[in-house]
Amino acid sequence: MQTPRGTLYTISAPSGAGKTSLVATLLKEVNHLCVSVSHTTRPMRPGEEDGVNYHFVSKEQFSAMLSKADFLEHAEVFGNYYGTSQAWVEAQLDDGQDVILEIDWQGAEQVRKLMPDTVAIFILPPSQQALRERLIQRGQDDHSVIEKRMAAAVEEMSHCVEGDYLVINDHFQQALNDLKAIVHTHRLRLARQQTHHAELLRDLLA
Amino acid sequence: MQTPRGTLYTISAPSGAGKTSLVATLLKEVNHLCVSVSHTTRPMRPGEEDGVNYHFVSKEQFSAMLSKADFLEHAEVFGNYYGTSQAWVEAQLDDGQDVILEIDWQGAEQVRKLMPDTVAIFILPPSQQALRERLIQRGQDDHSVIEKRMAAAVEEMSHCVEGDYLVINDHFQQALNDLKAIVHTHRLRLARQQTHHAELLRDLLA
Repeated sequence: MQTPRGTLYTISAPSGAGKTSLVATLLKEVNHLCVSVSHTTRPMRPGEEDGVNYHFVSKEQFSAMLSKADFLEHAEVFGNYYGTSQAWVEAQLDDGQDVILEIDWQGAEQVRKLMPDTVAIFILPPSQQALRERLIQRGQDDHSVIEKRMAAAVEEMSHCVEGDYLVINDHFQQALNDLKAIVHTHRLRLARQQTHHAELLRDLLA
Repeated sequence: MQTPRGTLYTISAPSGAGKTSLVATLLKEVNHLCVSVSHTTRPMRPGEEDGVNYHFVSKEQFSAMLSKADFLEHAEVFGNYYGTSQAWVEAQLDDGQDVILEIDWQGAEQVRKLMPDTVAIFILPPSQQALRERLIQRGQDDHSVIEKRMAAAVEEMSHCVEGDYLVINDHFQQALNDLKAIVHTHRLRLARQQTHHAELLRDLLA
């Protein structure tokens, strides 16, 4: 059997929709699936590992990659740079891995422009009330902070219409099954199966 | 919740690939999924029920439907006519049912021309040898009959490249899970979810 090229997924969600837990569990339960490891200029923190949590690079290295247009998407957050290397993603896909980018709608849009075959998934909470409750963390934030977070969440969610799939995270297990079904199904698409089962197809059509 | 329009599937396979058993089990285990009931001019057999096994019609009725272009596809087999009514299929889809047409590649091609959103699935056997063994029924058929069936099967399979998905029926349960994942996944597509969760989206984006 030959190894078909993997599928690239962007998974977007407002904070509080449960994306991180869903993706972490998905990675544990599905083979040949990985999450993109971003490049960053921010310093490594205790317990972090280069190439696992991030690819840690200097500002000079980051700039050099940027000037070579190596980033599928990049952003600046609090003075640090973060980016997804297209070369790294392509290498994973060529190796037969499905790759997930956990990314906001703007990043997803950048990626889709460079790699139009990308499958875009949006995860949504089951109600605005549920989202608000998840954003009120331990009651430590004041009202204006919560409202800012809610506004950011609504802005993010308004872009869900740009996705290919919508997954509602009402029940964790059901949302997980939704994500699994999507990954499973894209492995059955004609082009992938033609590569995966090239030998079988030759035998059947002989 | 509103009822989103269903998805139309064509499922094609060579004889002996196990399509009929797979579809029968799929229908038992998945809700809101039905198989198209064809119209036919052949006489009803004992135990058959009008509207269940077929819609039994006269040659005059069939001709009238044909002249109104009501058939998504039709064919003549041993002097009897068989056809899939587009009006019937559309009514099921509007009612929120996913509809399966068990159909050969020529029928699938006709359907796709009239309804381009149709999702085309091909089911293939795990080897030519396995197919041959399944076609040799109880050793009652002579060599030339088997060879004719094999040639027809190869002809059918050569059109699998026109499908959206390829499912290999090596292990029944795995092939069944493949089909379930495809149906599950298409229910998560943006347009369907936007209808299904229209109220939630209004709440989230308020």
